[in-house]
Amino acid sequence: MTEQGLIDVHSHIVPRELPANPAGSIDKWPCIQCQSATRATVLMGAKPFRQIDERSWDVRRRVVDMDRDRVAAQVLSPMPELLSYWIELGPAVELGRYINGAIAAMVAERPDRFFGLGSVPLQDPVRAAEELRQVKDKFGLSGVEVGSNINGCYLGDRRFDPFFAAAEELGLAVFVHALHPLAAPHLANTPNLVSFAGFPTDTALCAANLIGAGVPERFPRLRIGFSHGGGTLGPILHRMEHGWHRTKGFDGKLPHSPKSYAARFFYDSLVYDAQYLAHLANHLAPGQIFAGTDYPYQVEQREPAAFIASVADLVADGSSLWSGAAKRFLGRA
Amino acid sequence: MTEQGLIDVHSHIVPRELPANPAGSIDKWPCIQCQSATRATVLMGAKPFRQIDERSWDVRRRVVDMDRDRVAAQVLSPMPELLSYWIELGPAVELGRYINGAIAAMVAERPDRFFGLGSVPLQDPVRAAEELRQVKDKFGLSGVEVGSNINGCYLGDRRFDPFFAAAEELGLAVFVHALHPLAAPHLANTPNLVSFAGFPTDTALCAANLIGAGVPERFPRLRIGFSHGGGTLGPILHRMEHGWHRTKGFDGKLPHSPKSYAARFFYDSLVYDAQYLAHLANHLAPGQIFAGTDYPYQVEQREPAAFIASVADLVADGSSLWSGAAKRFLGRA
Repeated sequence: MTEQGLIDVHSHIVPRELPANPAGSIDKWPCIQCQSATRATVLMGAKPFRQIDERSWDVRRRVVDMDRDRVAAQVLSPMPELLSYWIELGPAVELGRYINGAIAAMVAERPDRFFGLGSVPLQDPVRAAEELRQVKDKFGLSGVEVGSNINGCYLGDRRFDPFFAAAEELGLAVFVHALHPLAAPHLANTPNLVSFAGFPTDTALCAANLIGAGVPERFPRLRIGFSHGGGTLGPILHRMEHGWHRTKGFDGKLPHSPKSYAARFFYDSLVYDAQYLAHLANHLAPGQIFAGTDYPYQVEQREPAAFIASVADLVADGSSLWSGAAKRFLGRA
Repeated sequence: MTEQGLIDVHSHIVPRELPANPAGSIDKWPCIQCQSATRATVLMGAKPFRQIDERSWDVRRRVVDMDRDRVAAQVLSPMPELLSYWIELGPAVELGRYINGAIAAMVAERPDRFFGLGSVPLQDPVRAAEELRQVKDKFGLSGVEVGSNINGCYLGDRRFDPFFAAAEELGLAVFVHALHPLAAPHLANTPNLVSFAGFPTDTALCAANLIGAGVPERFPRLRIGFSHGGGTLGPILHRMEHGWHRTKGFDGKLPHSPKSYAARFFYDSLVYDAQYLAHLANHLAPGQIFAGTDYPYQVEQREPAAFIASVADLVADGSSLWSGAAKRFLGRA
């Protein structure tokens, strides 16, 4: 497999500054406290959330790392905690637009090296649908990042149909990222399990819910991609597929099989295991896997080009892993 | 791969009759209503739960099916809903003993074809530990089936340590089966998703919780097996392993890596996909996969010998799939 220009669809940003908390009183309003030119703390309300560094906002530093890692282009999306679905609508709209502007500005610095995915206020799906037009026309982004659940509700719920209809109509990509996993209360007492088990679980249950609720059936041209290789979707799909056949299509409720819908979705490569990713790429979603690293955070897939090369060797048509699937997902094919 | 006598570790029974509801008033007390010699309905309290037939209780019928399916031996365990963790302790102990007696009686009819896994009242882990001695000495069973969570709590919680200590000391196998998945409230509106996505999720989160909470570290001789191939544990493990390395062992809280613990567990073959099962058998738990079918229920893996043969061809040491792993799990190696 010849190495090609790698597109990393899963990388995050945090702006260097954020708008002040309106009225000073909104719970969980995000805030950046800078310790130096290259160090900062993100707080949600008064609570420290994560230590970050200049990689989160500095285009030149990112390009240095991308050159080191042989990454041709990154897709920039908000650190998921910034999606702010838990903030009241008016301020959330303003915050989302600010972040979309920050991403657009980073892309504008090096349009040869970056694409952007923005944020819309899915606490109000109709308003989120309206905001999508700005995401495309004003900010020139390729789509949006969304949480796997919105304040406790997976995305298959009918309330989100206006958002999906608008994304489909505008040709914008939807990148689903785990956020506030619904299993968290049951995992919170076990070290690190919310992130390492809860995140992939939530992504997969969102995907299974979308399939079962008929979203890919109702919006056949919609381009949806899932972080972390769809999380735990692989084993779930095998069982759903078996069950669909044994129940005559979930008692006639789902016209096509779960795997046929899942094969239309996109998935990033962030599964930390070449053999498992090859299983996805060969058996569940041929041609639909793009690279994703989670740069610049702790669980980042390092040396992504080497990882993708190792997987491509195991996959019948591995060439799409480098950039082909990413370009189709982003609408740039 | 030469076919060998297949042991099906995952098969369920329901006794032909159950004790009457004590005082007539216990909520969700299970009851069997027979429509004919070969048809019955299981009710939980007043609510119909499942239609069953004579395969659930009739040893001769089961042996006919086993001969047809080339299954040398079945391990009989209660239909999971009978585990009755939601019933008050006193009656639950009596019900569990009754069911254990029914399983022992079925094994006694054809001890050449059956092993048994019983039920203990894990709503009181200390009492469950005490009951284990009867499971072994009075009923002669090989171990117990347990739910993936006990009334909302995964099994890694310290409250279950006395149960695990007793199972380890007595050399009894513990078979973890999905039951009342904690994700169910979030999946209930989507057809069939509680069973097809919630079950494998709950099994995996239980396993991840056991690992993270140190149960295999504290009870190194304990034999634990998971239904549905550990559910969604495969992709979770890859991420946990990466995270464990990047966080220096979950900040020093877990001495060995998640995959090293997971490789000590056993898993059944009920994943409905030969390639995925081969991934588990080759990369996550070599030698630790036994056959399991969910006989006699709707999502049963049919033609298990053909399925195991197809997987064995893909696995470095596939011979343990037939009976070797099962015998070690059951303490009969």
